[in-house]
Amino acid sequence: MIKLRFILVGKVKDSYLKTGYEEYIKRLSKYGKVTLEYVDEEKLNDSPNKLEILKALDEEGEKVLNRIKDDEYVITCDIHGKNIDSIEFSSFLEKNIDLGKSTFTFVIGSSYGLSDLIRKRSNFLLSFSKMTFTHPLTLLLILEQVYRAFKIMNNENYQK
Amino acid sequence: MIKLRFILVGKVKDSYLKTGYEEYIKRLSKYGKVTLEYVDEEKLNDSPNKLEILKALDEEGEKVLNRIKDDEYVITCDIHGKNIDSIEFSSFLEKNIDLGKSTFTFVIGSSYGLSDLIRKRSNFLLSFSKMTFTHPLTLLLILEQVYRAFKIMNNENYQK
Repeated sequence: MIKLRFILVGKVKDSYLKTGYEEYIKRLSKYGKVTLEYVDEEKLNDSPNKLEILKALDEEGEKVLNRIKDDEYVITCDIHGKNIDSIEFSSFLEKNIDLGKSTFTFVIGSSYGLSDLIRKRSNFLLSFSKMTFTHPLTLLLILEQVYRAFKIMNNENYQK
Repeated sequence: MIKLRFILVGKVKDSYLKTGYEEYIKRLSKYGKVTLEYVDEEKLNDSPNKLEILKALDEEGEKVLNRIKDDEYVITCDIHGKNIDSIEFSSFLEKNIDLGKSTFTFVIGSSYGLSDLIRKRSNFLLSFSKMTFTHPLTLLLILEQVYRAFKIMNNENYQK
């Protein structure tokens, strides 16, 4: 059984986004066991300096990494990552399933950014866009894209 | 007064996305008069041929263009367009406002794609990603990105 884990650092205030997550989790459950986990964002003052941010990111990074086992395939959303198209992304997941990977863990950092600890542990850094989106919106994008990938993999029509 | 028009070809079934649109329209109203318009998608059978699709796209394109006046600055979301970052996008809008443009019209095609009629009329073709997203989700992305652009332009902190 394929496991699909989505880990977001931080809280999601907009309930419409949570409704969207639930919708895609429901649809994705056809292809595997799906979980969505929230990791607490570190609390910082209003204008933290660079050192304070890096420290917070590493603390968040450690909390994320503590949840991830060695055999998990970690795909992290990173604006500096690689931008591939939906068909390539689907082939890429399919190839890794064929190679025997069974747990795919998708990580979205906090609004402060991403710890290098997470980057180093990641098997793939995925960029959606040069544009910056909020992290809760990025979670909706990755859920939609993973769902699309499984539809493509299974030669199913994608619902409009 | 800046006018921001968003035109989507097709219907949006997911009510959570509509809630998201309303949220960004409300926030954007601080910076201009915002409208969201839906143009009917052409009805096609389940497996239309290429000619039928092109014909439908052109019919949709004409309906969109009938709504657009000559002095509007048209930015169309197109996977084959240019991917710029959020700061560049903000500068780009600001430059056009400084040049005297007052109506910005953002167009998102239907699930069949985009008519060349719209491409030709567009002042700018904007790509978010190599990845394909649903058109209703693309509308949420452009709303978020235009909102972000105005926050950057006005040196305001972006809400997490």
